[in-house]
Amino acid sequence: MNVAVDAMGGDHAPGVVVQGAVEAFSELGIDITLVGPQDILKNEIHAYPAAKNLRIRHCEEAVGMGEEPLKALRLKKDSSIRVAFDLVKRGQVDAVVSAGNSGATLAAGVLSLGRLEGVERPAIAGLLPGKKGPVVLIDVGANVDSRPAHLFQFGVMAHAFASSCLQVENPRIGLLSIGEENSKGNEQVRQVREMFLRSPLNFVGNVEGGDLLGGKVDIVVCDGFVGNVALKLGESLAATLIGMLTEELKSSFLGRGALLIGEQCFRRFRKKIHSEEYGGAPLLGIKGVGIVCHGGSSARAIRNAIELAAKYVTNRVLEKMTYQLSFLRTELGFR
Amino acid sequence: MNVAVDAMGGDHAPGVVVQGAVEAFSELGIDITLVGPQDILKNEIHAYPAAKNLRIRHCEEAVGMGEEPLKALRLKKDSSIRVAFDLVKRGQVDAVVSAGNSGATLAAGVLSLGRLEGVERPAIAGLLPGKKGPVVLIDVGANVDSRPAHLFQFGVMAHAFASSCLQVENPRIGLLSIGEENSKGNEQVRQVREMFLRSPLNFVGNVEGGDLLGGKVDIVVCDGFVGNVALKLGESLAATLIGMLTEELKSSFLGRGALLIGEQCFRRFRKKIHSEEYGGAPLLGIKGVGIVCHGGSSARAIRNAIELAAKYVTNRVLEKMTYQLSFLRTELGFR
Repeated sequence: MNVAVDAMGGDHAPGVVVQGAVEAFSELGIDITLVGPQDILKNEIHAYPAAKNLRIRHCEEAVGMGEEPLKALRLKKDSSIRVAFDLVKRGQVDAVVSAGNSGATLAAGVLSLGRLEGVERPAIAGLLPGKKGPVVLIDVGANVDSRPAHLFQFGVMAHAFASSCLQVENPRIGLLSIGEENSKGNEQVRQVREMFLRSPLNFVGNVEGGDLLGGKVDIVVCDGFVGNVALKLGESLAATLIGMLTEELKSSFLGRGALLIGEQCFRRFRKKIHSEEYGGAPLLGIKGVGIVCHGGSSARAIRNAIELAAKYVTNRVLEKMTYQLSFLRTELGFR
Repeated sequence: MNVAVDAMGGDHAPGVVVQGAVEAFSELGIDITLVGPQDILKNEIHAYPAAKNLRIRHCEEAVGMGEEPLKALRLKKDSSIRVAFDLVKRGQVDAVVSAGNSGATLAAGVLSLGRLEGVERPAIAGLLPGKKGPVVLIDVGANVDSRPAHLFQFGVMAHAFASSCLQVENPRIGLLSIGEENSKGNEQVRQVREMFLRSPLNFVGNVEGGDLLGGKVDIVVCDGFVGNVALKLGESLAATLIGMLTEELKSSFLGRGALLIGEQCFRRFRKKIHSEEYGGAPLLGIKGVGIVCHGGSSARAIRNAIELAAKYVTNRVLEKMTYQLSFLRTELGFR
C-alpha cells in the first residue's frame, strides 16, 4: 500500500500535511509518497526520525486554493495534485490524499484516471458524524445543476462505498427534499425518487434537512449545491454554538466553575464534532482512489484520510462500485 | 390593532396557542380574534381572567399538518385558516398568525388577499438568530424550482421588511451559493446575481452556507428548497449538539458536576438558540400580513409572533414593499 500525499495542498501545508503523513506511516504502516518541491519537503521531514522512509516525488508547482481548477491544471502541468494522480495512473501509488483545492483535486483525478463506466459526473462524498454512525452526504459540491440520472448514480456509488468501505450493511439511502410526502420536493427530486423506487437499492424515501444526522439513513443524496450549503452551514453552526455556549459560561461565576471542572468533557465534545474521524471526503466516480481533505485539516485529519484511502483500496471498493454500476445498467436498464 | 389567531393550528393547539394569544393581549395590549370552534375555545380561555376580552370567531373546520394545502382549502371552506384570512380581507382584523400547516397558511393568504403587484411568487421569510442580529433567510420553503426573477423579488421584499420592520438600516443582501467567486454557483445563481448587481439594492455578493449567521449579511436569498433544508438542518443540529454535549457531561463525575453548577447558563443558552424571539416567519408577497409559526411553537413564540404581526402593520411594511417593487419595476425596468 502506497498513498501519494499532495504535500503542498491545504492552508497549513506543507508542515501539518507532512506531520499527518508521518503519523500514518509510523502508526499504520502505510507507505507514503510525498509530492512537492524536494528541498522544502526534505527540510520538513528532517524533524521526524521515522520519516526517512517516506518517498518524495519532486515537482515544482502547486495549485492555490482560490485558483480556477481547470485553468490552473492546464497551466501548471507540474503541480503536486496532477503529479500525484499521474503516479496512480502509472501504478506507482494506490491512492491520492489532498487538502488542497478540492475542485482541482477532482478535476486532476478525472483528467488523469477518467470516469468509471456508467458515471456521468463524479461526486464528492462528505462523511458526517451522525447520531448512530457515519452518514454519507453526496454530493457536497462537485456538481451543480445535476440531472436526475446523476443523482441516481451518486446513490449507487455511495451505496457501494458505504457497504464495502464503512462496513454499513445494506445502507439505507434517503433523498434530500423538503417534505416526506411524495408530492413535495422539486421536479428533480420527484424524478430521482422514481428511479430509486424502481431500483433494488435500499431506498427509504425522502428525508428533510432535520433528518440528516438523526440515524434514519446512512446515505443522503442531493445536488452539490444543496449538499455544499448544508455541509458548510453545519460546520459553521457547530463552531458558532460552541462559541456561544462558552461565552455564556464565561459570563458568570458558576459558569466559569462549570467550564473549569468540565474541561475534559468539553474538549472531548469539541473533538467529536470537529469530526476528524474520517479526515476527508472520497471522490466517487473516478477510476482510482482520491480523498479530499478540508483546507484547514489538522495532522490527525490527514493521517485519518490516509487511513481511509488505504481502506478504500484494500476493501476493493472500486471493483464493487464498478460491478454495481454495470449490473444496474445492463441488467435493469438504468443509465 | 387586532390580530386573528388560528387557534386550531399547530401541534399544541388550541391550548398553547390560546395561552400565547392571551399573553400578547395582556402584556402588549394587542386585540385578539381567536378563530376556531366556539365551544372548545370558550373552554380554553376560561382559565385566563384576562381572556374574557378576547373575541372568538367561530368556525367548524381546521386544516391538518399533513394535508395537501390546496386540496384541504378547497374542501374545507370553513377552516380556521381560511376564515382568519377572510377577516383580513373584510377589514375586520389587521393580520393573521398561525402555527398550522404553513403551505395551507400561505395558500389561504394568496387565495383571500391576492399577491402584491410585481410579485410572481410569495415567499416565507425565516428569521434566524445571527451573531450580530437577526438574519432574514428567504425563501424557506414556499417555492421550489424558482426562476431567477422570483429570487430577485424575494430580495426586494426582504429588503423592505428588514428595513421597516426589523429596523435594519440599508440591509445587506447576500445570495446563497457555493463559492464567493463569480464563476461558482449554479445557473440560477449566476442570473440572479446579475439582477442584484444591476439594482440599487445593497447587494454584497454571494455568500456560502458558513456565512449564514456570521453577521456578513442581513438577508440571504435562496430557492425554497435550499432554504428549507438549511433551516431544518440548523434547527436539528442545534438540538443534536446540545444532546451530545449533555451526554458527554453526564458520562463523567466531573462533567455531572459541571452540569449541576452551570445549570443556569445551560438553560439560558438553550433558550437563546431555540430562538423564540420572533416567534414566526412572515409571509412576504401577499396583500396583507400573515405570520407562520413553527408547528411546535411555545406560548411565548405565539405571543412574539403576534407582536411581530403588529409591528408589520404599524410600521406600514406593506406600503413600503409595494413602493419598492413598483419603483424597481417602472423606473428601472425590473420585472
